[in-house]
Amino acid sequence: MTAADTPQWLQTVEKKRKLRDDAISNLLNSHKTPAKSLSLTGLNGEVRSPIAIDSVEGIQQAIVSGEVTAKELCAAYINRLTEILFTDAIKQAAELDDFFSKNKRLVGPLHGVPVTLKDQFDIKGYDSTLGYVRRAFKPAAQDCVLVSLLRQMGAIVVAKSNLPQSIMWCETDNPLWGLTVHPRNADFTPGGSTGGEGTLLSLRGTVVGWGTDIGGSIRIPSHMNGLYGLKPSSTRLPYQGVSVSTDGQEHVPSVIGPMTRNIDSLIAVTKSVIDAGPWEQDPKCCPMPWRAELYEETRSRPLVVAVMRDDGVVKPHPPITRVLEEVASKLEQAGHKLVEWTPGTLHQECIDIMDQYYTADGGEDIRRDIAAGGEPYIPHVEALVNKGAPISVYEYWQLNKQKLAAQKRFLDLWNSTVSAKTGKQIDILLTPVMPHSAVPHRKCRWVGYTKVFNFVDYPAVVIPAGSVSKELDGDAAKNMGSYMPKNALDEWNWNLFDLDAMDGMPIGVQIVARRLMEEKVLGAAKAIDVILRSSNV
Amino acid sequence: MTAADTPQWLQTVEKKRKLRDDAISNLLNSHKTPAKSLSLTGLNGEVRSPIAIDSVEGIQQAIVSGEVTAKELCAAYINRLTEILFTDAIKQAAELDDFFSKNKRLVGPLHGVPVTLKDQFDIKGYDSTLGYVRRAFKPAAQDCVLVSLLRQMGAIVVAKSNLPQSIMWCETDNPLWGLTVHPRNADFTPGGSTGGEGTLLSLRGTVVGWGTDIGGSIRIPSHMNGLYGLKPSSTRLPYQGVSVSTDGQEHVPSVIGPMTRNIDSLIAVTKSVIDAGPWEQDPKCCPMPWRAELYEETRSRPLVVAVMRDDGVVKPHPPITRVLEEVASKLEQAGHKLVEWTPGTLHQECIDIMDQYYTADGGEDIRRDIAAGGEPYIPHVEALVNKGAPISVYEYWQLNKQKLAAQKRFLDLWNSTVSAKTGKQIDILLTPVMPHSAVPHRKCRWVGYTKVFNFVDYPAVVIPAGSVSKELDGDAAKNMGSYMPKNALDEWNWNLFDLDAMDGMPIGVQIVARRLMEEKVLGAAKAIDVILRSSNV
Repeated sequence: MTAADTPQWLQTVEKKRKLRDDAISNLLNSHKTPAKSLSLTGLNGEVRSPIAIDSVEGIQQAIVSGEVTAKELCAAYINRLTEILFTDAIKQAAELDDFFSKNKRLVGPLHGVPVTLKDQFDIKGYDSTLGYVRRAFKPAAQDCVLVSLLRQMGAIVVAKSNLPQSIMWCETDNPLWGLTVHPRNADFTPGGSTGGEGTLLSLRGTVVGWGTDIGGSIRIPSHMNGLYGLKPSSTRLPYQGVSVSTDGQEHVPSVIGPMTRNIDSLIAVTKSVIDAGPWEQDPKCCPMPWRAELYEETRSRPLVVAVMRDDGVVKPHPPITRVLEEVASKLEQAGHKLVEWTPGTLHQECIDIMDQYYTADGGEDIRRDIAAGGEPYIPHVEALVNKGAPISVYEYWQLNKQKLAAQKRFLDLWNSTVSAKTGKQIDILLTPVMPHSAVPHRKCRWVGYTKVFNFVDYPAVVIPAGSVSKELDGDAAKNMGSYMPKNALDEWNWNLFDLDAMDGMPIGVQIVARRLMEEKVLGAAKAIDVILRSSNV
Repeated sequence: MTAADTPQWLQTVEKKRKLRDDAISNLLNSHKTPAKSLSLTGLNGEVRSPIAIDSVEGIQQAIVSGEVTAKELCAAYINRLTEILFTDAIKQAAELDDFFSKNKRLVGPLHGVPVTLKDQFDIKGYDSTLGYVRRAFKPAAQDCVLVSLLRQMGAIVVAKSNLPQSIMWCETDNPLWGLTVHPRNADFTPGGSTGGEGTLLSLRGTVVGWGTDIGGSIRIPSHMNGLYGLKPSSTRLPYQGVSVSTDGQEHVPSVIGPMTRNIDSLIAVTKSVIDAGPWEQDPKCCPMPWRAELYEETRSRPLVVAVMRDDGVVKPHPPITRVLEEVASKLEQAGHKLVEWTPGTLHQECIDIMDQYYTADGGEDIRRDIAAGGEPYIPHVEALVNKGAPISVYEYWQLNKQKLAAQKRFLDLWNSTVSAKTGKQIDILLTPVMPHSAVPHRKCRWVGYTKVFNFVDYPAVVIPAGSVSKELDGDAAKNMGSYMPKNALDEWNWNLFDLDAMDGMPIGVQIVARRLMEEKVLGAAKAIDVILRSSNV
């Protein structure tokens, strides 16, 4: 293909990727030779051979053995990035050091903490592409509220990371930046839509990754990569200056939230942003300060925990069930009370309503962005935008009434779920994150375990709780043939299980509290994390 | 017209009104003769001769002089009611007395307080007509969250009150229940859409009236009747179980709020409902307890007050301006700092965006209700539903983006409005409520002074601050001819002024705080009220 034959969208892609690669090369190689490419995906989406690097020790061994250099490794995961801010980041780091040396105090509670953000957050002077070609080379005029607060508190913004076309998918692939793969197995997805942050954190390329979540997009990559992630209720953290597809669809709200490698970082960064008063700058934010007592109280007393083992639609794979049962059992041993979560068909009803919002415009929003860029559709996105005709505004209002009625039923169910022994209402809900661990690319089909909490707008934390194990899951795997799937989705999921390929893949659990109770869900997550870590999961 | 000729909708109207009148008669007349009708409006909307009763003393004098009996007076204002709950109310009152006598303590903070509600709030066993014929004889299956909380706290629900067809109007008239008139002059409107409560409170028919407000519907009748009213931010008080036209349109949210005859009642009832934890039952409510410190702190220190004298669209009549200046001057004398509110064209921009929401469905919601009932349109409503074709959901989402951007500009303006002397940010905004006092029926055209605060979702309190006065406003009235109106609306309003007819009509001022700062706006309202009352307004 000659330059003249190259379609406009592909020229934009090449130009955009070259700028990123140059930024990396310039930093890594003072002698200006390009970094050895470990890019795992070509422009046409083909997946190249993987390098399994899953821990700090693994990286050190690989470097010591001469298998890979630090620069090459760095380039390998930096390839999951979109916008590179290295020069600015190093300049800012120098300024922070200077401040500290002069003033003998830190600028703020995040002084020197490297952070990265999904490519939706506006950073002055850099693009927010959302993975769309048309949005390349259109730098933001100013920082979004989150970035402005993070910088005030001393955090260093290092880079922006990859996400799927349309953002409405739990994997990470788009024609502009390409496919993001799982660090343990390049044939597998790291999840999405905040997959770039999932991979980056897993490879220790950042300390705090910021994502968005409208159906599980923070929690799913956290689960698949062995990370911690918080999806708050909407209005708690500032969305102002964050772009999203189907922007203006506010009834199933997309929210921002952090992802980290440990629970304390997750809590600290959430508290810091809330302490910074985001409502002073974001008109949507609720003026609710950090409630330290609520956090402390939840962290330090016996909790009533409702456990959901199966959402009634798609049964989890044996390792997911095993890990959930292990966690439940440890909680009970530690003095917490367990009750059953019995939603009947309520989760499915909620999901049936919410799915109508995503495409209420008949796919017009996404179709316009892609048409303007000229790039091809990812198959999942093509199916989404062709799901049906738009509904009318009147019908849209009726949908809102259905939504509110379902939210009320959910709240009533929560209020009536009590400990049989004490009569006390549940504090939190404990559930799987997905019915499976990481799966091969383009195999994800059911995000019902996470999305229902976007619908009711309850905060949810994912914490790592185990991993798939040939040793522990072998027996259950052998008996899978006797299960009669409930429906086509359930059957699809059941057939996806592959113990050999999935062995070692991380598994998380999801902890949910009532709306706007971020301190409570984080307090419970901390208490549970302490139990799991002390029992050496 | 024979019964056979009577259209179905009118038969429903007659049946519904007869039930109300019977309920009143049964209570008032043990010998079962109907109460002398002081109904000021017939079925066909004609306005009958008024009885001017504007104060407790006035009522007492009228009774002593034999001009009217208490029963007749009671019937006169009860005619503004829709649903009558007298039997249930008296039964509940007896139960409360019984409880008190047995337990020597009150049931809750509203023990024995009579309350009334606009005919949108669901009360088990009673209709929520919204003024629509089709909704008559369809009793609610359960209490709305507010009524449930009020009853828990000991309040006695006495009746429901009138509102305009569609609710989207600042006057009070519908074919089901008829026209509600101003207590001082039956040719004048008491305002709306919570006009029934305005009249009831003015005539001392209730202690707390509950209304809704999507553009000024609590504040306008408060202003026109010399009352106190709070429009909170959405999510602070429970809307669950309250019906509204264009239900599901959640982007310019309708809110509920109280109206009273004094500031202390307004504060007490708001605090009580928040203390009752409405978020436990209403999934939309923000779990934010009453912040006593914020209230106390605001109430007791010098405030920075931005004053808006003219919204740049419709200039207020001379008495409105005079009263606002009197209040501003008294605040300054009391040690508060005044600054100018300079929105430029921002208020108009906000209103241009918000007006598109009300009819985004092309009027379908309202049209369906009226078509199903068969009653005629009120002219204002007919104009509203025929305003234009529906927009698409995609366009609706774009509108939401415009809305958020305008809300952000409003917040930035607020943050940058500071005292020149101290550099301190403003605490509250002081504005007129309307560009006029009460006006003749069907003359209201501009609610820009109130509706802009629905758009930004800021809490606003109206307190009585004065009245139209031949003596005080005579000179200014003589000079009105020299004013050059800015536009057709401005001209309409200017020509509406009639000092003789309006003499004595109440005038309120509006106090506004930032979003979800109900304690702050009430604290400021209390401080200002103390200043005004002590200076004998």
